[in-house]
Amino acid sequence: MTAIYHRVALIGLGLIAGSLSLAIRRGGLAQEVVGTARSSESRAIAREIGLCDQICETALEAVAGADLVVLCVPVGAMGAVMAEIAPGLKPGATVCDVGSVKRAVFNAVLPHLPQDVHFVGCHPMAGTEHSGPKSGFAELFDNRWCLIVPPEDADAQVVSQLSKFWQQIGANTTEMTPDHHDLVCAVVSHAPHLIAYTMVGVADDLGRVTDSEVINYSAAGFRDFTRIAASDPTMWRDVFLNNRDATLEILGRFTEELFALQRAVRQGDGEHLYNYFNRTREIRRGILEAGQDTQAPDFGRSGAKS
Amino acid sequence: MTAIYHRVALIGLGLIAGSLSLAIRRGGLAQEVVGTARSSESRAIAREIGLCDQICETALEAVAGADLVVLCVPVGAMGAVMAEIAPGLKPGATVCDVGSVKRAVFNAVLPHLPQDVHFVGCHPMAGTEHSGPKSGFAELFDNRWCLIVPPEDADAQVVSQLSKFWQQIGANTTEMTPDHHDLVCAVVSHAPHLIAYTMVGVADDLGRVTDSEVINYSAAGFRDFTRIAASDPTMWRDVFLNNRDATLEILGRFTEELFALQRAVRQGDGEHLYNYFNRTREIRRGILEAGQDTQAPDFGRSGAKS
Repeated sequence: MTAIYHRVALIGLGLIAGSLSLAIRRGGLAQEVVGTARSSESRAIAREIGLCDQICETALEAVAGADLVVLCVPVGAMGAVMAEIAPGLKPGATVCDVGSVKRAVFNAVLPHLPQDVHFVGCHPMAGTEHSGPKSGFAELFDNRWCLIVPPEDADAQVVSQLSKFWQQIGANTTEMTPDHHDLVCAVVSHAPHLIAYTMVGVADDLGRVTDSEVINYSAAGFRDFTRIAASDPTMWRDVFLNNRDATLEILGRFTEELFALQRAVRQGDGEHLYNYFNRTREIRRGILEAGQDTQAPDFGRSGAKS
Repeated sequence: MTAIYHRVALIGLGLIAGSLSLAIRRGGLAQEVVGTARSSESRAIAREIGLCDQICETALEAVAGADLVVLCVPVGAMGAVMAEIAPGLKPGATVCDVGSVKRAVFNAVLPHLPQDVHFVGCHPMAGTEHSGPKSGFAELFDNRWCLIVPPEDADAQVVSQLSKFWQQIGANTTEMTPDHHDLVCAVVSHAPHLIAYTMVGVADDLGRVTDSEVINYSAAGFRDFTRIAASDPTMWRDVFLNNRDATLEILGRFTEELFALQRAVRQGDGEHLYNYFNRTREIRRGILEAGQDTQAPDFGRSGAKS
């Protein structure tokens, strides 16, 4: 493959930036990748493992001469980072983010954007519960979706080049508006995360069941919740603070449905329960058919049979 | 290893029975394993793949001469199966179940138990979202927990022999009372399942987000919910109908906690959210340290880096 951008700057050196750097290298998608992080420890680790061609001390330094700048920081930090790098951006450069919400990122970032620089929102829907510069791997985005969210006045050529970049990173791309993006993510990601966090907290609070019981017997269902609930606390705090309306709407619907199932349990309405469970099974089948998961039974334990 | 039981009869031929048969064979834990299922299709498949030494047409036939009878049927069917096999049980035999609830199984099974036959509740905490005679594998129970729930008047020798059997199947064992068992399982398994079912249903109902969007973008969080929610509907209906009180108690606590987090989202209380998410992360660390899971990041996708 040929390089799509000459110089790419990664701001923030966590799971996403680390995986991006390795995927760019794998595909030969840029002549040079520079990175930076606010934490000196992260910069030191990134240097030590050779994560990028160059690790800069500041974001302003990192963006100098970059054709593509990728903001890989928590959603709550996007505005401040954009304000910091704005004076150093190359005319004609493209800036994108990788945040999990879009309306709030637009509101934070666009006011600081220089006239001659492009911004396009991006949301690669891939992750693990690990974070930090050592957690990245080149395959993270392979066959995952990257949602591309252009501002209304976006340059079609810029959007198309950026989409091609993500496709060569390994991802599938599709475009949507910021508000639709935020609703879709509230359903498939944000509300499920808050629910998993809640259930793990409940288990921990319950005096009559010991922590070691919770921990030892977590295989059948609860284990997946703890995996979700181990995700980066700062990132998720920012997601909820910045996608408040859609998250609250989905949680409201969730509570309604849960109350209906709870009533069926209380009233012993087995038919209601059976029909509901049967319906959700179909959705799972749809996910398997769409190729977003494997059929290997790993929920009892990772790799048991695969 | 030497056989612990001469003849083992498996009633029901789903994931658990299939895996048991293969694990018994792997360990040489019985001279003979016979099986049966109500469905003639399941019996035919089990015969075809040679799952047991012998597949019988009826449960009554299967238990003849068996030293250990394992009831691998949904919780709601335990009482009827016990009534059916009671006349054919060998004096001195042990009957156990593998159900996910225990108080209700005791209530259903014990009234039919002949005087000279022992019953001990068992709950191997292992599973996948697959079911049927072809879904079993010998490693399913390896390093998982099997909760042993003896009735009050249990024969210590019988319980000890059965515990040894499960240990050689590959599981860790521990004893608890039926009521404590049901509470622990409501926390670590039953409530999380109902919650996952609910969230998958909500996603499906939401008109403004299409099914294909839900399906395509499920990687980040929602995928684990659909995996849980794809479990056998009959089994789970019976679990909720038979562990009603503990499940409702845990759901009540869950709703309280969720409302508190929801309020924090609404009020923009980032500190509350951060502290909560940080605490749940610790519980996850506890699970890793207890060896009940691997650190391989498989929640973005199975086997991505492992």
